[in-house]
Amino acid sequence: MTDFAATRRAFHLPQGIAYLDGNSLGPMPVAARDRVARMMAEEWSEMLIGGWNKAGWYVQPRTVGDRIARLIGAGPEQVVMGDTLSIKVFQAVSAALRLRPGRRVILSDSGNFPSDLYVADGLARAVGAELRVVAPDDVASAITDNLAVLMLTEVDYRTGRRHDMAALTARAHEVGALTVWDLAHSAGALDVDLLGADADFAVGCTYKYLNGGPGAPAFIWIHPRHADAAQPILQGWMGHDAPFAFDLDYRPAAGIERMRVGTPPVIALAALDAALDVWDGVSLSDLRARSVQLTEAFIAGTGAACPDVALNSPRDPALRGSQVSLRHPQAYAVMQALIAAGVIGDFRAPDVLRFGFAPLFNDLDDVERAVETLARVLRDGSWNDEAFHRMSAVT
Amino acid sequence: MTDFAATRRAFHLPQGIAYLDGNSLGPMPVAARDRVARMMAEEWSEMLIGGWNKAGWYVQPRTVGDRIARLIGAGPEQVVMGDTLSIKVFQAVSAALRLRPGRRVILSDSGNFPSDLYVADGLARAVGAELRVVAPDDVASAITDNLAVLMLTEVDYRTGRRHDMAALTARAHEVGALTVWDLAHSAGALDVDLLGADADFAVGCTYKYLNGGPGAPAFIWIHPRHADAAQPILQGWMGHDAPFAFDLDYRPAAGIERMRVGTPPVIALAALDAALDVWDGVSLSDLRARSVQLTEAFIAGTGAACPDVALNSPRDPALRGSQVSLRHPQAYAVMQALIAAGVIGDFRAPDVLRFGFAPLFNDLDDVERAVETLARVLRDGSWNDEAFHRMSAVT
Repeated sequence: MTDFAATRRAFHLPQGIAYLDGNSLGPMPVAARDRVARMMAEEWSEMLIGGWNKAGWYVQPRTVGDRIARLIGAGPEQVVMGDTLSIKVFQAVSAALRLRPGRRVILSDSGNFPSDLYVADGLARAVGAELRVVAPDDVASAITDNLAVLMLTEVDYRTGRRHDMAALTARAHEVGALTVWDLAHSAGALDVDLLGADADFAVGCTYKYLNGGPGAPAFIWIHPRHADAAQPILQGWMGHDAPFAFDLDYRPAAGIERMRVGTPPVIALAALDAALDVWDGVSLSDLRARSVQLTEAFIAGTGAACPDVALNSPRDPALRGSQVSLRHPQAYAVMQALIAAGVIGDFRAPDVLRFGFAPLFNDLDDVERAVETLARVLRDGSWNDEAFHRMSAVT
Repeated sequence: MTDFAATRRAFHLPQGIAYLDGNSLGPMPVAARDRVARMMAEEWSEMLIGGWNKAGWYVQPRTVGDRIARLIGAGPEQVVMGDTLSIKVFQAVSAALRLRPGRRVILSDSGNFPSDLYVADGLARAVGAELRVVAPDDVASAITDNLAVLMLTEVDYRTGRRHDMAALTARAHEVGALTVWDLAHSAGALDVDLLGADADFAVGCTYKYLNGGPGAPAFIWIHPRHADAAQPILQGWMGHDAPFAFDLDYRPAAGIERMRVGTPPVIALAALDAALDVWDGVSLSDLRARSVQLTEAFIAGTGAACPDVALNSPRDPALRGSQVSLRHPQAYAVMQALIAAGVIGDFRAPDVLRFGFAPLFNDLDDVERAVETLARVLRDGSWNDEAFHRMSAVT
């Protein structure tokens, strides 16, 4: 059995709060702080340029990628780190499009994270493709013969609704299309199984449930059947077959390495690598079981104690990720009151209270405190206080 | 007068070496180590998601960009940070191309850094443009009427040859083309004057002469006359006019902010921001004068003491950046012997010894030591020792 009391102790959690926003930014693993300090004091400072070899900076995008592979049901040498999730979406969708010459339709849904839609739209305009966006429930029926790429985020960032990755991938393959899965709210939260679902491409960020720190690098995975055929648009030198030959012509590296672009973010990768230490010994089935336990307890608790909010997530845990969303007409002010009382979730326009349950560090005490605090805030109307009506740029 | 003894003291420089590789990776400013430690211990750990506002993470790509603007002759609110240099090249060239509809030729030279050529080639293939690559001396004559974009790196990464930014920009404008300047070996090394040269786009990295750390984020500048017209291909949410409205459609932010893509690399930006503290009070004309002093002294010294090497950089400092390259048939082995003797430069295939002179921390003692060591190594043939013939992936 995974020892979740031990994984919780691996984090620095500020005194007096219940942090239910790890689906936006994971808290700091103590090892990440120490590792970054060591990277600065022993690697950059003393090794200087020699750190690329001596400290393994150069290979880190792949060695860290290999550690993430286990958490998403992928194999070794199939995942590489770098850039941001938006860039990785661009790489995955563009490479998938090129594997389906003669087709031009990218299908997504309105539950996708907006940046994925923006990126696909920008790509489509540039290369003469077309982005179609349908409601989440209409995705399956919109998979038709002309489809090139199905691009979905597995778990909806607002509602927590989880797509059936295996079923939608199978449906896409029936019409000869390829799939690109965004695992932003899946990696580290669910028992993701990319190879089991027979997916084609996947991308994700590492600053949510993987706790890599603000702006931590993203990852990209390509199924081995495509990895040597995928042609990048973003042809950077670190994805070249021989970067230090300094040839004038681009020749992609073998496999997933071709999805590297520029110089890797070494300090950020040090933090992320240390954050991944917490995952050693965590079983994904235990992770999923604990996630369901926490979200079920929160739904049951708020259902009983908070009649003024409506559940905005699927009631069936099989259809849900590791977050619970509630609706309230004054959601912004309610969330401000919750935060002031030490329960940190977040607000999503127009009326959503979002609570993430990260199995590595959240526990039933957090759930109990969140339920009790929300019930009290709603009961005493303290959310209505003028002081909480400040808008903030990032919530 | 700029106090270069004080700026040198701001760096951690390992004992016993002369570091002439700041044009590959700048050394660690002591303040960067301290700032990153504080960012981890006080911001991420304690503020959690609140750091986006409270610690200014969200605006940092622009506030740090404003600090770099002064070093490249740009104005405030014209520079934004993020991603890597290769991604910024893609953004700049693609945006410039779109500002010249009906034209399709991108012109560059074989002295450009290969990644820039790879990126432009990848873009050109995707959007139906054409990349033309000529010899550095042939650039001016290759600027012809059909040109859309002139994409050049100001200072050649191997030879240190400096293009005349103002003259080539004027020539490009005569035929109605736009310019994209890569300042990788210019920013922090030269008295760059983008507005004075009337350039259109510029990009650069910050891990060389700006000392931001391995994989530090890149920057992009757009002349204000183009900033609101430039249409990004990489449409990321952080470049949206209202990122937190979560609209389904992309609408670019005003000005340079539209060149943001994904979540900014907060830890890396903390290191870079602290590294820029060293630049407070540094005058760019003093910087240039010191750079010329150091490179001239090295050229004179090696010219007198090292008859077996040939100067591979322009003799006229006006045509040169802040590095000096020498050629030797056994350059790789010679560089290994130099490094073993504590003089850190680097090797570039096939026969180039490259020495960067960073005015902020290099001094005439470094020059003297490098000259004496190189003379000794060449004289006693220690470079020929079998032990130095190990190839390394990154040199």
